[in-house]
Amino acid sequence: MRVLGIDPGLTRCGTGVVDGGLGRPLRLVDVGVIRTPSEWSVAERLVFIEKGIEARLDEHRPDAVAIERIFARSDVSTIMGTAQAAGIAMVCAARRGLPIALHTPSEVKAAVSGNGRADKAQVGAMVTRILRLDQAPKPADAADALALAITHIWRGGAQARIDAALAAAGTARKAAR
Amino acid sequence: MRVLGIDPGLTRCGTGVVDGGLGRPLRLVDVGVIRTPSEWSVAERLVFIEKGIEARLDEHRPDAVAIERIFARSDVSTIMGTAQAAGIAMVCAARRGLPIALHTPSEVKAAVSGNGRADKAQVGAMVTRILRLDQAPKPADAADALALAITHIWRGGAQARIDAALAAAGTARKAAR
Repeated sequence: MRVLGIDPGLTRCGTGVVDGGLGRPLRLVDVGVIRTPSEWSVAERLVFIEKGIEARLDEHRPDAVAIERIFARSDVSTIMGTAQAAGIAMVCAARRGLPIALHTPSEVKAAVSGNGRADKAQVGAMVTRILRLDQAPKPADAADALALAITHIWRGGAQARIDAALAAAGTARKAAR
Repeated sequence: MRVLGIDPGLTRCGTGVVDGGLGRPLRLVDVGVIRTPSEWSVAERLVFIEKGIEARLDEHRPDAVAIERIFARSDVSTIMGTAQAAGIAMVCAARRGLPIALHTPSEVKAAVSGNGRADKAQVGAMVTRILRLDQAPKPADAADALALAITHIWRGGAQARIDAALAAAGTARKAAR
């Protein structure tokens, strides 16, 4: 399974592609950051981010896309741009019919480090160890994108079973009406 | 000049196309609402909104796109989806190289009714009068989209002069360094 992780942002949008499966070693395929200058209009920045994500989808053909789930209670000054970058990422994936998963920062921290309140350095260190890299990917947005992809692969099996159970329960509930 | 106004929203995204110019009567070209069911994923809803906006751009070929400016202080429960719908609208326009203007709700209310704190009914009534319609466009999102387009046409001349003056001042400042 190949997953593209996206840590959305208007100034820096981290992207990371990881190959692997449950119980098998994970492999780094690609990592990077899409940067846009603050002098550009929001529209120009979003179009540039769209192009960057499309290029990564074209090149790496992931089976799924994992995006950080944005909360309205986050930092108000950047929340709008972050939400819009996440929206563009979702549209790029959905247009191709790719499964999209949203993971919260604490889910990602818990998945890679066992601690939902781990700091950036700890997440970076664990990503480095899990992918057997020589050093932590920089900047933090790039490491976070890889952590999202890792989280998705590791949670994938469990989440798919939960979704299937919920869908079955929903069908049962409807049938019982 | 033909302007597409967009009142962004995930559940209802209002669109309105208006022809006209400063000092000339305005004409309604098209009005509508892109609706998406709340059962759909955000990604599916954003893709559907993108398709709807693309269809309107293809059909009506506007010279500019006016979008409501979203503030982070708005209703937190809907702000993320609204910001994302606005982001998609911006990307659709920017990909075609169309000028994009963001107008605040109070700018729009002031432009069409003379009162920056006018209510929905007053905005609807003024849109009806300005475009010489038989009745107010429904729902309010559709009327708001038309009000955005009207605002853009009426503010267009003044705003273009302000932008040009600011750009000239910026050039002068840089040259003076």
